[in-house]
Amino acid sequence: MSKLPKTETDKRLQKLQQLLSTMQAESCLITSQVNKYWLTGFIFDGYILVYAQSDPLLFVRRPAGLCGNNIFMIRKPEQIPGLLREAGFRVPGQVLLESDTITLSAALRLQAALEMPEIKNISAAIREIRSVKSAYELDQIRESAAIHAKVYELIPSLYHKGMTDLALQIEIERQMRLHGSMGIFRSFGENMDIFMGSMLAGDNAQVASPYDYALGGAGITPLLPLGASGTLLAPGTTLMVDMAGNYRPCMDDMTRTFVIEHAPDIAYRAHQVSLDILHTIEATAKAGVPCAVLWHIAEKIVKENKLEAYFMGTAQQAKFVGHGVGLEINEPPVLTPRSNEVLEAGMAIAIEPKFVLPGIGAAGIENTYIVHDDRLEKVTLCEESLIILS
Amino acid sequence: MSKLPKTETDKRLQKLQQLLSTMQAESCLITSQVNKYWLTGFIFDGYILVYAQSDPLLFVRRPAGLCGNNIFMIRKPEQIPGLLREAGFRVPGQVLLESDTITLSAALRLQAALEMPEIKNISAAIREIRSVKSAYELDQIRESAAIHAKVYELIPSLYHKGMTDLALQIEIERQMRLHGSMGIFRSFGENMDIFMGSMLAGDNAQVASPYDYALGGAGITPLLPLGASGTLLAPGTTLMVDMAGNYRPCMDDMTRTFVIEHAPDIAYRAHQVSLDILHTIEATAKAGVPCAVLWHIAEKIVKENKLEAYFMGTAQQAKFVGHGVGLEINEPPVLTPRSNEVLEAGMAIAIEPKFVLPGIGAAGIENTYIVHDDRLEKVTLCEESLIILS
Repeated sequence: MSKLPKTETDKRLQKLQQLLSTMQAESCLITSQVNKYWLTGFIFDGYILVYAQSDPLLFVRRPAGLCGNNIFMIRKPEQIPGLLREAGFRVPGQVLLESDTITLSAALRLQAALEMPEIKNISAAIREIRSVKSAYELDQIRESAAIHAKVYELIPSLYHKGMTDLALQIEIERQMRLHGSMGIFRSFGENMDIFMGSMLAGDNAQVASPYDYALGGAGITPLLPLGASGTLLAPGTTLMVDMAGNYRPCMDDMTRTFVIEHAPDIAYRAHQVSLDILHTIEATAKAGVPCAVLWHIAEKIVKENKLEAYFMGTAQQAKFVGHGVGLEINEPPVLTPRSNEVLEAGMAIAIEPKFVLPGIGAAGIENTYIVHDDRLEKVTLCEESLIILS
Repeated sequence: MSKLPKTETDKRLQKLQQLLSTMQAESCLITSQVNKYWLTGFIFDGYILVYAQSDPLLFVRRPAGLCGNNIFMIRKPEQIPGLLREAGFRVPGQVLLESDTITLSAALRLQAALEMPEIKNISAAIREIRSVKSAYELDQIRESAAIHAKVYELIPSLYHKGMTDLALQIEIERQMRLHGSMGIFRSFGENMDIFMGSMLAGDNAQVASPYDYALGGAGITPLLPLGASGTLLAPGTTLMVDMAGNYRPCMDDMTRTFVIEHAPDIAYRAHQVSLDILHTIEATAKAGVPCAVLWHIAEKIVKENKLEAYFMGTAQQAKFVGHGVGLEINEPPVLTPRSNEVLEAGMAIAIEPKFVLPGIGAAGIENTYIVHDDRLEKVTLCEESLIILS
């Protein structure tokens, strides 16, 4: 069932139960796929009830035939109180729910089924404890990044003159899958559609999108207005590749920029400023450093170079320069000017200073780092300069 | 902005406003991506407030720069009442919400922001009105099905001896994308992960999955326990291909079964029973026929052939033989024994009688049909017999 070592699931459960104690809560009910996987190592249709002091109880609708200690097969949540009493457990008077992901209908039905316990929200708190990764998770991120780098190294060989961004993306998608990309690419938030990542060529990089990702793009369908739009990869423009690093359940995130044959000096200059920002942040960031400081480093260097109008977009500018990564692509912390978050050892963060240059395209870079007590460890080891496609 | 003809969006709005009248409701607030697209033809971060008697009001957080009649740019939902009053609209005392998709947190925040209107659920009712498609939507489904058939026709040329299900799937995925697959593949429900569809080879077809799809499969990752598992395509086994038909926003659904070099007679027999079920349903189904009747036709033929133990799975058996398709892959109606739904002209339904044969694999077929007053129109026109890969 679980593909995770027992030491790992034990540790995660312990963190969650400590959180319940800290929140002075009797129990929580885990309902999201990502947190069911995080806690048990597998995905099922059902619920996990966690009390502060005992083993978690799994109520499973599907798959059929699961068995084990504390696994109860159910058809509907209304069976839960009876099963709890039969097994000698109390029906909780207070339940923390994943209110940021559970639907209103599901929450109301569960609350009624559980005989109207008090409900509070545990979503943000779980995201916070998940933001500090275990050694096992950090190894997955390193492994994912190593494969991610191998796939990006193939990009020049996948390119041919006259291609569109989409045609090249399709060949990259195929290589991603051949290298073990899981396909599924989880992000947090109600309105965060994405497919396998984003490619932005030329002025498509300027197109504002409805999503809270670093940059936009028009996409190829009104159903997913994001990323590649069928733009011809024209000489003198740039192509920014930010495809998924989902080669392991815990992911990395990496962006590289390519030049179609040649690009104006300003593209090289903006790209160098991105590298300068990264290097300055690399020299500063470690456990204990506030996330807002990292944003301000970026902002200061951008201003010194008078590139404010192009930083993280033009018409629509993202107000962050990095974010946590893990089981989801957009985890805490977020590197924003008003963040109250502080880096902790074991966090994995993607830092992505990017510029959008009208008439040319995007320039910049994104690396994933693991936060240590005394430094950042870069895990996305792959050529960082502008790479010419010809 | 919208890629839909105005006559189309006008008709959809009219259906929704009629629904509000029927439900004696003052207003509804559309929050899901799929219904924002359905109503306006584009996706944005924000809300659509629909009163029974006036044009819809759009409250948009992103993308930046949207403008038009009745579009209000906002940073947060708390701005809505002020904007409404300024523009001469009343703040609604009752709001129908998409309770089956909006999160508990978002719903509570919206209710407070809107000064505590009464909340009721409109999710199922919108799914119901969406289940009867317009001529425009039905044409999209026909177009999608025609491309879907072209891609499936390539499968024999993509196969080579010694391939795994996953290796073949990756080549099919590439062809899908080259033929315009949108990548994003929408399904309804909190726990309905999927990537680009499902391929089931040999005994992987028996593996129970946590999802409410027709069949299961182990998948290649515990993050997505569904479909291809890296199983070798072995002579004497079958491969069932049920990849997405998302070539247009309104989709089709189609399954075909392939034989690896040769297969035992029972595979041919079970496949023929699937075809018999389809033909019998085709001869019966039209507007006015209850969906439960179609399930019972299937059940009767399965029993006559003593194949009950293998119908729609073995260890875990799906209790439906078809479903509506549209902007989402799992729309109403659902063809179950206890369904109260009745076919209506303009519905698009996928019918998928399938068997899982231990030691061999799945056999069966799935077609998409448009319901007319006097017949079903089959839109997935593609070889239906077992196709040999060699």
